[in-house]
Amino acid sequence: MADRKTALVISAHAADFVWRCGGAIALHQKLGYEVTVVCLSYGERGESAKLWKQPGVTLDAVKAARRNEAENAAKALDVHDIQFMDLGDYPLVVDQDAKFKLVDIVRAVQPRFMMSHSKYDPYNTDHMYATEIAMEVRMIAQAWGHNPGQKVLGAPQLYLFEPHQTEQMGWVPNVFLDITEVWDKKRAAIECMEGQHHLWDYYTNVAQNRANHFRRNSGGQAGGRDAKYAEGFQAVYPVCVDEL
Amino acid sequence: MADRKTALVISAHAADFVWRCGGAIALHQKLGYEVTVVCLSYGERGESAKLWKQPGVTLDAVKAARRNEAENAAKALDVHDIQFMDLGDYPLVVDQDAKFKLVDIVRAVQPRFMMSHSKYDPYNTDHMYATEIAMEVRMIAQAWGHNPGQKVLGAPQLYLFEPHQTEQMGWVPNVFLDITEVWDKKRAAIECMEGQHHLWDYYTNVAQNRANHFRRNSGGQAGGRDAKYAEGFQAVYPVCVDEL
Amino acid sequence: MADRKTALVISAHAADFVWRCGGAIALHQKLGYEVTVVCLSYGERGESAKLWKQPGVTLDAVKAARRNEAENAAKALDVHDIQFMDLGDYPLVVDQDAKFKLVDIVRAVQPRFMMSHSKYDPYNTDHMYATEIAMEVRMIAQAWGHNPGQKVLGAPQLYLFEPHQTEQMGWVPNVFLDITEVWDKKRAAIECMEGQHHLWDYYTNVAQNRANHFRRNSGGQAGGRDAKYAEGFQAVYPVCVDEL
Amino acid sequence: MADRKTALVISAHAADFVWRCGGAIALHQKLGYEVTVVCLSYGERGESAKLWKQPGVTLDAVKAARRNEAENAAKALDVHDIQFMDLGDYPLVVDQDAKFKLVDIVRAVQPRFMMSHSKYDPYNTDHMYATEIAMEVRMIAQAWGHNPGQKVLGAPQLYLFEPHQTEQMGWVPNVFLDITEVWDKKRAAIECMEGQHHLWDYYTNVAQNRANHFRRNSGGQAGGRDAKYAEGFQAVYPVCVDEL
Amino acid sequence: MADRKTALVISAHAADFVWRCGGAIALHQKLGYEVTVVCLSYGERGESAKLWKQPGVTLDAVKAARRNEAENAAKALDVHDIQFMDLGDYPLVVDQDAKFKLVDIVRAVQPRFMMSHSKYDPYNTDHMYATEIAMEVRMIAQAWGHNPGQKVLGAPQLYLFEPHQTEQMGWVPNVFLDITEVWDKKRAAIECMEGQHHLWDYYTNVAQNRANHFRRNSGGQAGGRDAKYAEGFQAVYPVCVDEL
Amino acid sequence: MADRKTALVISAHAADFVWRCGGAIALHQKLGYEVTVVCLSYGERGESAKLWKQPGVTLDAVKAARRNEAENAAKALDVHDIQFMDLGDYPLVVDQDAKFKLVDIVRAVQPRFMMSHSKYDPYNTDHMYATEIAMEVRMIAQAWGHNPGQKVLGAPQLYLFEPHQTEQMGWVPNVFLDITEVWDKKRAAIECMEGQHHLWDYYTNVAQNRANHFRRNSGGQAGGRDAKYAEGFQAVYPVCVDEL
Repeated sequence: MADRKTALVISAHAADFVWRCGGAIALHQKLGYEVTVVCLSYGERGESAKLWKQPGVTLDAVKAARRNEAENAAKALDVHDIQFMDLGDYPLVVDQDAKFKLVDIVRAVQPRFMMSHSKYDPYNTDHMYATEIAMEVRMIAQAWGHNPGQKVLGAPQLYLFEPHQTEQMGWVPNVFLDITEVWDKKRAAIECMEGQHHLWDYYTNVAQNRANHFRRNSGGQAGGRDAKYAEGFQAVYPVCVDEL
Repeated sequence: MADRKTALVISAHAADFVWRCGGAIALHQKLGYEVTVVCLSYGERGESAKLWKQPGVTLDAVKAARRNEAENAAKALDVHDIQFMDLGDYPLVVDQDAKFKLVDIVRAVQPRFMMSHSKYDPYNTDHMYATEIAMEVRMIAQAWGHNPGQKVLGAPQLYLFEPHQTEQMGWVPNVFLDITEVWDKKRAAIECMEGQHHLWDYYTNVAQNRANHFRRNSGGQAGGRDAKYAEGFQAVYPVCVDEL
Repeated sequence: MADRKTALVISAHAADFVWRCGGAIALHQKLGYEVTVVCLSYGERGESAKLWKQPGVTLDAVKAARRNEAENAAKALDVHDIQFMDLGDYPLVVDQDAKFKLVDIVRAVQPRFMMSHSKYDPYNTDHMYATEIAMEVRMIAQAWGHNPGQKVLGAPQLYLFEPHQTEQMGWVPNVFLDITEVWDKKRAAIECMEGQHHLWDYYTNVAQNRANHFRRNSGGQAGGRDAKYAEGFQAVYPVCVDEL
Repeated sequence: MADRKTALVISAHAADFVWRCGGAIALHQKLGYEVTVVCLSYGERGESAKLWKQPGVTLDAVKAARRNEAENAAKALDVHDIQFMDLGDYPLVVDQDAKFKLVDIVRAVQPRFMMSHSKYDPYNTDHMYATEIAMEVRMIAQAWGHNPGQKVLGAPQLYLFEPHQTEQMGWVPNVFLDITEVWDKKRAAIECMEGQHHLWDYYTNVAQNRANHFRRNSGGQAGGRDAKYAEGFQAVYPVCVDEL
Repeated sequence: MADRKTALVISAHAADFVWRCGGAIALHQKLGYEVTVVCLSYGERGESAKLWKQPGVTLDAVKAARRNEAENAAKALDVHDIQFMDLGDYPLVVDQDAKFKLVDIVRAVQPRFMMSHSKYDPYNTDHMYATEIAMEVRMIAQAWGHNPGQKVLGAPQLYLFEPHQTEQMGWVPNVFLDITEVWDKKRAAIECMEGQHHLWDYYTNVAQNRANHFRRNSGGQAGGRDAKYAEGFQAVYPVCVDEL
Repeated sequence: MADRKTALVISAHAADFVWRCGGAIALHQKLGYEVTVVCLSYGERGESAKLWKQPGVTLDAVKAARRNEAENAAKALDVHDIQFMDLGDYPLVVDQDAKFKLVDIVRAVQPRFMMSHSKYDPYNTDHMYATEIAMEVRMIAQAWGHNPGQKVLGAPQLYLFEPHQTEQMGWVPNVFLDITEVWDKKRAAIECMEGQHHLWDYYTNVAQNRANHFRRNSGGQAGGRDAKYAEGFQAVYPVCVDEL
C-alpha cells in the first residue's frame, strides 16, 4: 500500500460520524492518518427536530445549521477533509451519478479502511441504505474497467460503526478501539451538536461502557488495559495477518 | 502479559491439530512462541478406520499407533509440548476431574491465544463438545477462587480452526494467516497421518484456496500479498486495538 | 397519544389483509379502533389466476373484480376505511411520489400500530418489498422536516402478519391474539374471496391451530384460555411497559 | 391464575439479580408482587476476585461475604424471599436432585413470570447453563406426573435479563421496563456489591441508556414517555393478548 | 447399500412418532421399507395429564396405558418394529449405557434414513435432547473402533420431523412428503392417542396445510400435484444426487 | 411438466456459470436437458482486469473478448443456448424492461430448475442483486395476468451455485452433484477463461474437495460413492417427494 495513511467515513446524515466514530477519527488523525468524512445528507429533515420547531425556519436554514455543526465537529476531531453530498434524507436517495461521484472520492482517498453504518436498521432505513451503497461503491472502485486510468481501489476493511440500539440492528462489534487519549476531542465534537443535546450523555455512557468491554477483552481482572473510553466496530471482511 | 509467548491448542482427536492449524503452530513456533497441543483423545475409535481393518488389532495398539503419528506430526511442526489426555472418543467424555486437569494445563501455559473446533458439528459431536469444554475451562481458569494461589488466566482469544465441510458447521473465518513459509512443515506433518491418506490432498487444496482468500482480502488485484498457502480461523471474542 | 384509537394495515395485494389479519381488524374495530387498510395493488396480475382463465377478460375487469371482493371483505370486517393505491403487482413498484402519498396517509391516520408482511419472502418479492416500504414510510412520517406543519408520527409498533409457509419466510410470531369472538366476521370476509376458494379452509385451519398456540402459551393444561381461533403476529420493535 | 401475584428470578451467581433485574424486582414488589430470588451459587470462585486477594481468606468466608451482600441487596429491593442453593460456580453444576429441588420452588411460588440469563454466553458458561436449567425446570414443573398431587405450573413467561456485552451473547431485548420510580432502590442494591465497585457506574449507564430506548420506542420526539432509568428483557415465549 | 430398505425413528415420548411422522412411516412401509420406532420414554410424566387426573393412578399404570396406545398406533401404521427404552421423561435422561444400546439398535437396523425432533425446543427440552442423542449415536455407530466386528453405519440422512409451534423451534422444512394414500392409517393411529384428543384435529389441520405447501412447491397453479395430506421434514445433511 | 427437460442459469457476469455450475450444465446436457445460460453482463468492467491492462483497449473490445470466452466455454459445456443481455456490470442494473425480457426468456424456456448466485455477497453486490432479480422474475413469470396468453411458469427449484468465499456469503450447500463424468468438459470450459488464469486451479481444488463431501454424505467409509469431482448447490425451496 501507499505510504500515505488514509481512511474514509461514509455518514448517512451530518452528525452520525460524531457519535459513532468520532474517537476513531481523532485517534487516527493523531496517528498520522488523513481521515476524510463524506456526509451523504445533512440529516436536515429527519434529524433536526429542534430546528424545525423554530417558527419560520426554512430547509436551507436547517441545512446550513447542520452543516455548520458538522464542520465544527470535524474541526474538533482534526478531520482532514469533510465533504457534503447533499443527497437528501428521510429518505436518502443515491442515484447512479451520486454513486459514481462517491467512487471518485473513494479512489482519490485510497483509504486503508472505510467506515459506515450497520447492515440493518428497522428504525432508520437511511442508515442501512448507506451501508449498501458503501459496499457497492467499494466494488465499483475496484473495477479496472470503471474509469480506466484512475487508480483502482485495493481491498480496504469496512468497519460498521455503532448504531443506536445495537441489538435491534443485529450489529455485533468484533473490534474495540481505545479512544481514551482523544476523548476530549470527541466530547468537544459531540457538544457541537446543539440540536441533539439529549444524546451527549448517551454517547458518553456508551464510550465508558465500551471501555469496560475493552478492559475485559484485553485481559480482565488479570491484566486488562485500563481504557477509560472506547469505541466498538464490526469488521465486515476477514483480516489478513502474519501473526495471530 | 508475560514476556514468554505461548499458545494452546485443544484438539478433540489426535490428528485434528495437524489438518486444522498445523501451519499456525509451525509459524508461531518460528515466531518464538511455545505452542502446547493437548489431544483430548487419540481418535482411536472413530478416526482410525484403516487400523481397525487390520486383523487382530487391539484398542491399545490403535491408540499407540495414533499417538505415534501425532508425536511425529508434532515434531514436524516444532510443537513445544504435546499432551495426551486419553479421555476416549466417539463419544469424547470430559468429566469434572478432566476439566480441572485441563485448567491446570491452561494456567501453566498462560496462552496468548487458544485454539479449538467449530461451535457446531452435526457430523462429529466430539468436535463441538471440545469447544464447549474449551470455553468452560477458559472461564474456570480465570476464577480467582479456583485453586487460589495459582496464577489466573487473562483473556486469551479463542480461535476456532477450520472444520471439515465448513458451511454445515456455521463456521465463518474472520482471520486468514499466511503459512507459506512453513508449508513444508505442515505438509510433512500431514504425511505423518498414514491412516488418513485421503485427506492429504484435501487439506493441501484447502491451504491453497485459503491463500487465494488471503490475497483477495489483503488487496486483491491491486496489491494483495502473494500468499501460496494460508489457514483460516474464526476468532470468538472481539479484538482490542490501538489502531484499526 | 390522541384519544382516538387507530390502526393502519399496509397490504401488498387486495386480499392479503383478509387472510393475514382479518381477525385483528374486526376485533379492534369492536374495541373502538378505527382501522384503515391500504391496498398497494389489487393483486390483479399475480393473485387472480381464476379470473384470467375467463375468456376475454381485461386488466381493468380483473382490477374491478378484485376491488369489489376487497371492499366486500372490508365491510364484513367493519373496516373504517379502505384505500386502493393501484401501484401494480408482480412486481409492485412504489416510487417516491407513492411513498410520500403513503406518508400522508400514515400521518392522517396516526396509527397506534401498523401491520404489514414478513421481512423475507422468496416466493413473493412484493410481500417483502411492502414491508421495506412500510418501514421507510414510518421513518419519513417521523421526520419533523418532511412537510413541516403536518403532525409527525410517534413510534407505532409494526406487526408483521402471518405469511404463507411461515418457516420459509423466517417469520416468528411473538404475539398471539384471540379472535374467537370475531371469527364469524373473518370467515365471512374470507368467503368474499371468490377467486381463491382453495385458501378458505387453509386459513381456517391456521386460525384453529394458532388458537392451540394461544391456549398453550396462556397456561396450557393448567389454566390456558380456551380460545377457538387466533392470529399470530411478529412485533418488530420492543414493547415499552410498566409491568411485565 | 391465582390472585396472588408472584415472580421468580433464577440467578446463576449471588449478584446477577442486582445488576440485571434489580429494577424489575423492586418495581413488581411495589406493584404487589411477591418476588422470589434463587441464587444457584454465591459466585464465590469466579466473581469474588477482590475477596480472594485478601491474605488468608477461605472459601467459606468468601461465600459468607457474598451471601451477606446479596441479602443486603435483596433487602434494598424489597425482595419477598431469597434462597441460596449453594451449587458451586465456575463451573455451576446442577444435578438431578438440585433440579427437582428447583422444581419444588417453582411450584411453590407459581410465578406469573420467571427470569434468568441469556441463552448464550461464551465468556461465562454458568450463565447460559442457568438458562438451560430454567427451561428444563419449567418443563418438569408443568408435568402432571412429576410429584403427582403438587399443583402443576402454568405457562409463565421466561424473561432473559441483560447480560454483560449483550451483542456477544446474541441477546435482543423485546421489552423495556420503566424503573425510574424505583431507581433509588436499585442503586442502593448495587452499592451493596462491595467487591464489584467497577460495575456500579457501568450499570447506571446501562439503565440511563435503556431509558433512552424506552423513550424512543414509546413515541420518540412525538410523545415518548420521559423515563430516566429502564431495564431491557428478552421474552422467550410469545405473548397472548386481547388487544394489540 | 443393502437391498433391505429400512428406516429408524427416534421418538422422545411414546406419541411423538404418530403426530410428527406417522404418514412417512406408513408410506415407507407400503414402499417396502422396514421402519423401526424407538420410544426413548413413554411420556409418562409429562404427556399423560389426562391419565394422571384419574384417582389412584400409578406410574406403572400410566406407562402401561401409554405403551398400549403406542403399540396400537404402531399397528395402525404397519410399523415393522417398535421398541421402548423406558428412560424416563421430563426430563429424559440418556446415560452412556443407553446410548450404546441405541447404537446397537442403529447398527442392527442399518437405516437408510433416521428421524428425530427439532434441534431447538424451549418448551420441551426432552425433544431437543433426543435430537442431540440421535446425532451422537449416529456418530458412534459410524466408528470402526466401537464394538469392532459389528457392521458400521453409513451416512443416513437425519430428518427432523415437525415440532409443535414450528417457528419457535427454528425448524424449517426442506422436504414435503405426500401422504395422501396413507392418510387413513395416520388418522387411525392418531385416534389411538386417547389422552390427547385435543391434538387430533390439530394434526389433521397440519397435514392438510402441508399438502397446500406440497401443491405450491410442486408447481402451484401451473401443474402442482394435487396432494390432500402431507408431512414436512428438515433434512440435516446435504443430499447427494446424480441429477438435480 | 412438459416432456422436454430444460434448465436456466442466470449468471451476473459472463464467466460465473463456468466456475460455479459448469459441471451441472454439462451433466444435464448429457442427461438430455436443454440448458439455457443468460449472462446479464459480460463482466466487462469488474472482472476483466487483465484485458484492461492492455494499452489502448476499449470497452467494446473487452466485451467482445469476454463474450468470445463465454461462448467458447458454453460450447465446451454443450450449452443448448447462451444469451447475453449486456446490462452492464459494477454495477449491474436491471430495469423494468430488462426484467420483463428476462421473464420472456424464463417462460420460453420453462425450466425444470433455475440457477443463480448466493443471496448475500458483501464483496460483489452484482451477485446478490442477480439472485434478487432471479426470484422476482420467477414470481412475475408465474403471474397469470402478466402477458396473458403466454404459458405461465410452474414452481421450478432455484439452486444457488457456489460463490467465492462461501462462508462470508452465508451460503450453505444442501445438494451435492457428482460431476466426475463431465469433469473434462468443465476443465476445458475453465481453460477458456484466459483472463482469470489464477482461478483455474482454485476451482479444480473446489471440485475435488466437494467430491470428498459427496463421498462422506453418500456413505463415508462405509459405502460412499467414489466421486472424483462434484459441485455444491443450495436449494432455496423445499423439495416435494414421494419417498424420502
